[in-house]
Amino acid sequence: MPQFRKNAMTQEWVIVATERAKRPNDFTGVERVDLSALPQWSEDCPFCPGNESQTPPEVLAYRKQGEPNSANWWVRVIPNKYPALAVEGGLNRAGVGLYDTMNGVGAHEVIIETPLHNHSLAYLDETGVQDVIWAWRDRYLDLRRDNRFKYIMIFRNQGRVAGASLAHPHSQLIATPILPIEIEEELQGLRRYRDFHERCLMCDIVIQELYDGARVVLENQKFVAVVPFAARAPFEMSIIPKQHQASFADMQRDEIEQFASILKGALLKLDACLNFPPYNFSLHTAPSDLERGDDYHWHLETMPRITVAAGFEMGTGIYINVTTPEQAADYLRQAGAPTVGRAVPAEGAALAAPPSSSAGTA
Amino acid sequence: MPQFRKNAMTQEWVIVATERAKRPNDFTGVERVDLSALPQWSEDCPFCPGNESQTPPEVLAYRKQGEPNSANWWVRVIPNKYPALAVEGGLNRAGVGLYDTMNGVGAHEVIIETPLHNHSLAYLDETGVQDVIWAWRDRYLDLRRDNRFKYIMIFRNQGRVAGASLAHPHSQLIATPILPIEIEEELQGLRRYRDFHERCLMCDIVIQELYDGARVVLENQKFVAVVPFAARAPFEMSIIPKQHQASFADMQRDEIEQFASILKGALLKLDACLNFPPYNFSLHTAPSDLERGDDYHWHLETMPRITVAAGFEMGTGIYINVTTPEQAADYLRQAGAPTVGRAVPAEGAALAAPPSSSAGTA
Repeated sequence: MPQFRKNAMTQEWVIVATERAKRPNDFTGVERVDLSALPQWSEDCPFCPGNESQTPPEVLAYRKQGEPNSANWWVRVIPNKYPALAVEGGLNRAGVGLYDTMNGVGAHEVIIETPLHNHSLAYLDETGVQDVIWAWRDRYLDLRRDNRFKYIMIFRNQGRVAGASLAHPHSQLIATPILPIEIEEELQGLRRYRDFHERCLMCDIVIQELYDGARVVLENQKFVAVVPFAARAPFEMSIIPKQHQASFADMQRDEIEQFASILKGALLKLDACLNFPPYNFSLHTAPSDLERGDDYHWHLETMPRITVAAGFEMGTGIYINVTTPEQAADYLRQAGAPTVGRAVPAEGAALAAPPSSSAGTA
Repeated sequence: MPQFRKNAMTQEWVIVATERAKRPNDFTGVERVDLSALPQWSEDCPFCPGNESQTPPEVLAYRKQGEPNSANWWVRVIPNKYPALAVEGGLNRAGVGLYDTMNGVGAHEVIIETPLHNHSLAYLDETGVQDVIWAWRDRYLDLRRDNRFKYIMIFRNQGRVAGASLAHPHSQLIATPILPIEIEEELQGLRRYRDFHERCLMCDIVIQELYDGARVVLENQKFVAVVPFAARAPFEMSIIPKQHQASFADMQRDEIEQFASILKGALLKLDACLNFPPYNFSLHTAPSDLERGDDYHWHLETMPRITVAAGFEMGTGIYINVTTPEQAADYLRQAGAPTVGRAVPAEGAALAAPPSSSAGTA
């Protein structure tokens, strides 16, 4: 018998197919992310070192020496050349007949995660992943000072199927002048639970998941990675701080180290289990308005794009998940390291990128 | 400057990229629906005539003569062999720690729209499309009598990219024991508007769109097809009855004829404009509980799958639309008929299916 499960935070029901559940190898026909086909450096890539003039001037870079917009950086942040939102101007809310509009004001930046074209976040060494997170934090704290922005969303698209238009490893950040509806619904859910129980729902979820264990994929001192009880799709994961923390920007150095470690570990598990799938992740943090954020408990949501939301999901908002969260967690736990997962190679060395043809699935 | 636009019903903001807007030919790299590669009849297809024994016994068929589950039907409805929900049993709501569950009770049926394997809904003649709508209505009215079901969603997935696993032309129906969150949000929006204005929002939208004209694609006596003001993706369309009507099942014969005509016309426009794109549509109708349905105004939403929702959309619920609704409507209006759009051929005649290689785009 299939089972309805309710997302305790958003109140959304999903349908979990408990019979005929799909295994990792059943998701065929999905375009995998084949980094081995890419060169280590590309003349045409605006994100590759030496091509800095092809991008808007950087807003942040980590480099030991050298001028802004020169090479020799290891993380570089630039405004998106084709931004979804424009950074100048006011909102100018206006009606168009019965409809409502406002100007598309906001910020849209690209965090280039490494100089190496054929790399990926999961294959940076832990220091490299930490530096990407520090860059997210630096840009977040800078943009939060702009009172026009109500929310700052950090996200990553891996692979064409997941919406990535450039292969060079990068994450993105968009600051919006409105509180996004998904975050508003999470906040409402957290407050409804707090009104009833006088506790944080996410803190309780962490306790219950660690006690139960069936959906835990990875755990370290500060974080846990779980397949959500009401996962919308196979092999969805959430990485959640064990201690209550409203904003990811409140992390201290030791927490960033632990977060980098579990994020890298979770992404490697995805590659090993699902053969380098396309994926998205989004970092759900408290709204920039801190007073509203006290109720929030930040987390990161990872979604491999191995299934397709179709007419039923679009019409109803009810997702059908063809792999039970418990089975998905079991497959992910059993998955070893992907065939190739290694640190950034020494300069000049050929980079052995993760191949697309094998996986360490259980 | 990009523009935020608010969906007047769901209150969701979208970002419309008003500059560098994409034209129909810019959406490359999307797998088109190539019916010309398919045979008219397939031995392996459980939906082809003669293979009726490969499906569960039919719940409805339109045929002139012959036994149930024999050939010679022109529309046939069967329970899904791999249903998302099971038709037997009670809900048995239960807690699992702090989580909520219930049994996956519901109905999941497949409406086989034509005996011809390499056909598609848009290429049936108008009588053929009407008969599909009559079949939707017949099954809807039958399932509505089951008090366990709170909602019945009719939808269609065209092409692998849009989630179709079998090529043979079919739509689907899923009856759920809960009111889907998307419909609940639409109802809330309609009621909020009615509380304020004492009018139906959708009725007002129809009036405003017909007066404005910029987003109207097709119109007949009873229906209008528009690109929504806050469309989430390029070339989204809504087909809306001009007169207030809560449930699609309330349509009379003349309304079904007009609905079939505009639905066929809208789907042909999509094929002509976007070169046979994969698409989904979902029929949004009043909840089965009629008392709650009086506020509703039914409509059908069509979404071509030529862009990808990525990390930002998943994290925020804010969609970025790279073609303005006004430009999309203009392209759709200008699109002629697709290169091949014809009635069901005489028995035995080779079917000239729509080719995948050309389009009558403006």
